Amino acid sequence: MNTLDENAVAMIIGASGGIGLALTQRLLDHSRTGCVWAACRRPDNAALAALAQRHGDRLRLIAMDVGDSDSIAEAFAVVESKTPQLHLLINAFGFLHDADAQIWPEKRIEDISAEGLEANFRINAMAPALIARQAFPLLNHRQRAVFASLSARVGSISDNRLGGWYAYRASKAAQNMLTRSLAVEAGRRAKRLICLALHPGTTDSALSAPFQSRVPQGKLFTPDFAASQLLARIDNAGIEDSGQFYAWDGEPIPW
Amino acid sequence: MNTLDENAVAMIIGASGGIGLALTQRLLDHSRTGCVWAACRRPDNAALAALAQRHGDRLRLIAMDVGDSDSIAEAFAVVESKTPQLHLLINAFGFLHDADAQIWPEKRIEDISAEGLEANFRINAMAPALIARQAFPLLNHRQRAVFASLSARVGSISDNRLGGWYAYRASKAAQNMLTRSLAVEAGRRAKRLICLALHPGTTDSALSAPFQSRVPQGKLFTPDFAASQLLARIDNAGIEDSGQFYAWDGEPIPW
Repeated sequence: MNTLDENAVAMIIGASGGIGLALTQRLLDHSRTGCVWAACRRPDNAALAALAQRHGDRLRLIAMDVGDSDSIAEAFAVVESKTPQLHLLINAFGFLHDADAQIWPEKRIEDISAEGLEANFRINAMAPALIARQAFPLLNHRQRAVFASLSARVGSISDNRLGGWYAYRASKAAQNMLTRSLAVEAGRRAKRLICLALHPGTTDSALSAPFQSRVPQGKLFTPDFAASQLLARIDNAGIEDSGQFYAWDGEPIPW
Repeated sequence: MNTLDENAVAMIIGASGGIGLALTQRLLDHSRTGCVWAACRRPDNAALAALAQRHGDRLRLIAMDVGDSDSIAEAFAVVESKTPQLHLLINAFGFLHDADAQIWPEKRIEDISAEGLEANFRINAMAPALIARQAFPLLNHRQRAVFASLSARVGSISDNRLGGWYAYRASKAAQNMLTRSLAVEAGRRAKRLICLALHPGTTDSALSAPFQSRVPQGKLFTPDFAASQLLARIDNAGIEDSGQFYAWDGEPIPW
């Protein structure tokens, strides 16, 4: 079964963010996916409400604070009570800076702070691991399933030539290792589960907003373009791709 | 100047652990290093007291809890008030499990916990970054200096073929990224500072004690052997090695 067939159940975590919302919209508007669980801290927002009005039962909203282990477990208890299987889960959230710029990507070593490191590790690295733990029983079945996390090219250690962004880079490297470890274990226990680290490209979202002036012309993607590319990567992925790191265009990225 | 010359000032953080203590002993007993700062949570332990008796002023004990950002800053304020420069700093601490086995390396995805992730990230990833921030002004001078962190081969993402140990592996990948980022910035601002990620091999210590039965015969190192190998790597490293990951025998390890 294709991940996006009408019997498929998908889950987008971080569904109110730029890419997360676009992924949710694309799955509902441009795929036959049977049901999409959209998780975010405040699922009562206008964009998701509008989608819910159009798609009725195909969209299921659920509250989840990915920075809180208990909240993750509670949300999955609800999902598990309503659906026996997931065929696609995308970790579409990410942390780079907070809204009031108290935590900001470090330009220099002097900018490193415990608060910055904590926030980045909590959201970018711990949350995908805690989600994987809860989601694994739902993803481990006889049909094809994909567990994908939005990573970032700046999370590649060997590709790091510019430095800076200490906490974000380190948290994404940690996330990549978790994806890789999960793929190894899935290879033994869940033979149709494909685990992917995906770089969406720089996409016009709240996360990238303060840094878009650096992006070369034509290289700043709309969330819808990023979402369509990511879903194409997910749809085309085979089991041999599990545990790998790919950019939006399918280019492999070294660790 | 060689790192271990008589005018050199070294600092070992985690100086009461297996490898940390051996590094401190080796620097005092088998090098001309002028002064060694030995930092750990409880520097009033018997092994360090015995060393202090033998070496007098060459050994300086200082309390530091690497899990506490304020404690790191306070310790460096003392170091900075007594010495203008450091020529060698080794992060010789590490976390894999706690003493009462409440936190233990995960065998399966079901074993992943927020507590385990937090503890591993705090000690293995955040602490080296916070230490680097405090130590950078002391390491940035006209003489050769080395900032080395004990990493681990299981922290190599591309070498991860066994899976498991989710939190430890991820925290070491994060630490490796931090070492790399630091090397990039040092390359611009501190042209004689060499930043290294070092794999000591499996060494007989409290960290590895529960897992030694898996180690092939002759592959479990004494702390003194590991320390001598690590110091040889540090002494032989050139600026072109900065930002790289090496095993105890000099073999490069991929990210």
